[in-house]
Amino acid sequence: MITVLRIGHRLGRDSRITTHCGLVSRAFGASKIILSGDYDKKIVDSLCGVREQWGGDFEVEYDKQFMKIIKNFKKDGGIVVHLTMYGMNLPDKIGDIRKDGKDKDVLVIVGSQKVPGEVYQLSDYNVAVGNTPHSEISALAIFLDRFFEGRQIEKKMKKGKISIIPQEKGKKTVEE
Amino acid sequence: MITVLRIGHRLGRDSRITTHCGLVSRAFGASKIILSGDYDKKIVDSLCGVREQWGGDFEVEYDKQFMKIIKNFKKDGGIVVHLTMYGMNLPDKIGDIRKDGKDKDVLVIVGSQKVPGEVYQLSDYNVAVGNTPHSEISALAIFLDRFFEGRQIEKKMKKGKISIIPQEKGKKTVEE
Repeated sequence: MITVLRIGHRLGRDSRITTHCGLVSRAFGASKIILSGDYDKKIVDSLCGVREQWGGDFEVEYDKQFMKIIKNFKKDGGIVVHLTMYGMNLPDKIGDIRKDGKDKDVLVIVGSQKVPGEVYQLSDYNVAVGNTPHSEISALAIFLDRFFEGRQIEKKMKKGKISIIPQEKGKKTVEE
Repeated sequence: MITVLRIGHRLGRDSRITTHCGLVSRAFGASKIILSGDYDKKIVDSLCGVREQWGGDFEVEYDKQFMKIIKNFKKDGGIVVHLTMYGMNLPDKIGDIRKDGKDKDVLVIVGSQKVPGEVYQLSDYNVAVGNTPHSEISALAIFLDRFFEGRQIEKKMKKGKISIIPQEKGKKTVEE
């Protein structure tokens, strides 16, 4: 089971980026996102709205005390992966993480503003998806895609109100 | 060679999302991004700044007339891939696209606001990265990762002013 922890959210500035982190978490097989930083009701509502419309069991929580979450997660035997462009490159680490993740819960941390040094120290893995700037959204997507070896894209979620019938051209949705 | 075409950019609202699309394009092996929609000098400057600092040959252009770009690209023998959650699922199409892309240029379209129906018609492939909402940033990242079969993450770019020495804990950069 994978939980994503989004830390350092800033109201306004990060609003769409954090929402996209939540959507990626749900679409790519994480079970839950915990939002930290500024409390932003709109994001919680928007992610819960997507679950209601599009299905699945994805959970959304808010918790200001992200250091406590990380420490408790480790105390309970989970492993902590911090996505950072300064870390070790993903292809060198994903095998170990996948092996650890077989019988342990995994907490994936995605930062926004400057991440405290303690997060680097507490994390079992500091992992970069290429050591060059891009986006926490893409880092999270690639991490989950590699972790689940692509299976999450084809997995069926518990049905919501709408689903898509894939088309070569155009759009087709079915409402239940 | 892959060119990314970002259409429908809206000043303000899409600013960070479009910037992240540009960063992902560069980091994941595209050669160029063409920005369309509202003109946004800050994004062009920010992407050029990243190239200068972090290296590579990534190009950034602005062109309001995105339909003309798509039509010219096809006329010149390139293939057009439109990333949309309504399309055919990526795993069913990536083999064909990779084969086509061996000796043809590829234009990858990422939309923001509602994409005109003509784009679906003109595209050779309308492709979904899972038929559920997430983010144009993650769709683009996964598409490029699958297209290049992961090699882009380990590719060395032409050097910039800064580079990262990957660390198990903490941060280490080298300035040239």
